[in-house]
Amino acid sequence: MTEMTTLAQYQGAKVLITGGLGFIGSNLALRLVELGAQVVIVDSLLPEYGGNLANLAGFEDRVRVNISDVRDGYSLRYLVKGQDFLFNLAGQTSHLDSMKDPFTDMEINCRAQLAILEACRECQPTVRLVFASTRQIYGIPDYLPVDERHPLRPVDVNGINKLAGEQYHLLYHKVYGLRAVVLRLTNTYGPRMRIKDARQTFLGVWVKAALEGVPFEVWGGEQLRDYTFVDDCVDALLRVGTQEAAWGQALNVGGERPYTLKETAELLIQANAGRGAYTVRPFPAERKKIDIGHYHADYGRLRTLVGWEPGVPLPEGLARTLEYFRARLPLYC
Amino acid sequence: MTEMTTLAQYQGAKVLITGGLGFIGSNLALRLVELGAQVVIVDSLLPEYGGNLANLAGFEDRVRVNISDVRDGYSLRYLVKGQDFLFNLAGQTSHLDSMKDPFTDMEINCRAQLAILEACRECQPTVRLVFASTRQIYGIPDYLPVDERHPLRPVDVNGINKLAGEQYHLLYHKVYGLRAVVLRLTNTYGPRMRIKDARQTFLGVWVKAALEGVPFEVWGGEQLRDYTFVDDCVDALLRVGTQEAAWGQALNVGGERPYTLKETAELLIQANAGRGAYTVRPFPAERKKIDIGHYHADYGRLRTLVGWEPGVPLPEGLARTLEYFRARLPLYC
Repeated sequence: MTEMTTLAQYQGAKVLITGGLGFIGSNLALRLVELGAQVVIVDSLLPEYGGNLANLAGFEDRVRVNISDVRDGYSLRYLVKGQDFLFNLAGQTSHLDSMKDPFTDMEINCRAQLAILEACRECQPTVRLVFASTRQIYGIPDYLPVDERHPLRPVDVNGINKLAGEQYHLLYHKVYGLRAVVLRLTNTYGPRMRIKDARQTFLGVWVKAALEGVPFEVWGGEQLRDYTFVDDCVDALLRVGTQEAAWGQALNVGGERPYTLKETAELLIQANAGRGAYTVRPFPAERKKIDIGHYHADYGRLRTLVGWEPGVPLPEGLARTLEYFRARLPLYC
Repeated sequence: MTEMTTLAQYQGAKVLITGGLGFIGSNLALRLVELGAQVVIVDSLLPEYGGNLANLAGFEDRVRVNISDVRDGYSLRYLVKGQDFLFNLAGQTSHLDSMKDPFTDMEINCRAQLAILEACRECQPTVRLVFASTRQIYGIPDYLPVDERHPLRPVDVNGINKLAGEQYHLLYHKVYGLRAVVLRLTNTYGPRMRIKDARQTFLGVWVKAALEGVPFEVWGGEQLRDYTFVDDCVDALLRVGTQEAAWGQALNVGGERPYTLKETAELLIQANAGRGAYTVRPFPAERKKIDIGHYHADYGRLRTLVGWEPGVPLPEGLARTLEYFRARLPLYC
């Protein structure tokens, strides 16, 4: 069987997205609808998570939404049947929450992942499965940029559990032949992100503060980070989903270049036509203990395999993000 | 505060052992009783696991046994209060069972570990905590002997979950200052091991077959393994428990030298006065997929830190194991 390498494969395809009402999931759903896919979204709408029905505004009648919890193995077995692709984006993302309630983080990031994989293995073993992992599993980098051979030393419960979730996917590929691939995401940002608090990324609360005209806090300030605009992230997910050579691999996603947190804050204010202000303060103690220092990713392996590169530079991405939320702030606060 | 480096610290100490009715746990309990410790054993006596009341024969009135499940956070909070040491040996050990029922493996090897750590953090933050991890987390070795810098690539659900359990311990040391240390055990064998099936180690069923005079199966035969006699394993646990320099570290335990499986089988038959026979067969398919190939450990870091070395060579250890079970076979079958 030859394999189409373009996104044309998604036309008419049946696609399930766990966490599909969330930030990345809803952007992915929109793109898939544009590509002609039949999209089913699974989301639990847990209030601390990214799910938000407002994320579907304008295309809500072109997707099917199934509200259920991915920890529920029974509904999953039904939902995966007949699917061509499964984008597995359901996850607990807050590092601090994972320290305060490690059990819930484990339920979502470990148990639910096993439930999804068991459902695929038993009911839809041919599904192509893309799992959203995180740079957090590397911990404090030994070197920069971080490639996939870097040691895995997660610095919080969330990182430990996400690593287990990623390893389950790779294991189910190796042992059962599931067509699974893992993307290790870095700071993803853009329209539909969670901005009411910092549970997805600090950029969320910065964007909200800039739009509301109140100062935001920069912790530390010199740490390097890379950023992926959500359209680029969606592009990476779609590309690896169709690429057989990617099965069984864990691949870094990255940004066009690293920025310090202070540079990022300056760019955000510039993108907001100069409106906004920030204060620099030391890391809060509870946060400092689980911080990873500098980070940016080497995404060369992903580029080689599927030709992916970041398309939207940070200044442009921030402008588009601000534009989206400026018109919809009440829906996200 | 100066720290005694000898085992004299255990005299009069309060010690909790999770999984204390199991193989290593009961041997540890016996040694601690001899050293004058006040030992409390927690065990769930789940039938597929290593717990066996016969393991306490002869010293049952010198320890306190509390039958409860380590997944039960409430009883743990009570049990850890006032303890000086906690040897955390409760675990699901079967690789095949972890593939057949990944959820139970996760409950024991992830959830219960979080419950134990949370109980320590909240109720007894000064306890010295030793966690029994496994060489399984390394997966298929890149090089031999395997040291602690080797990449971690577990090849089954059990390895993934044990890795998470180990990482939780190291994280709770780093973030909360818990005095935790991890030992990565290799094939431990000796009196009180589970011999009714291969859930702990293949050596168990070999010993049983040799004593019953029936042939046992050697799968493959050329794979290298190292073995730790249980008295040596107990010695390693006791030494790291008193050594402040070990907190926050994960350390390999090993054997005096590697043997192939066939050599091991020959030694077992020699130790049994020449009685016994084995057949060599290829790996069963389900087992082959999660096999790690050759393995033996570099335990140099443990030796440097606490002066530990294996004391009992395999031939002697096998003889002592056979002697123990020869007199007690019905209690273990």
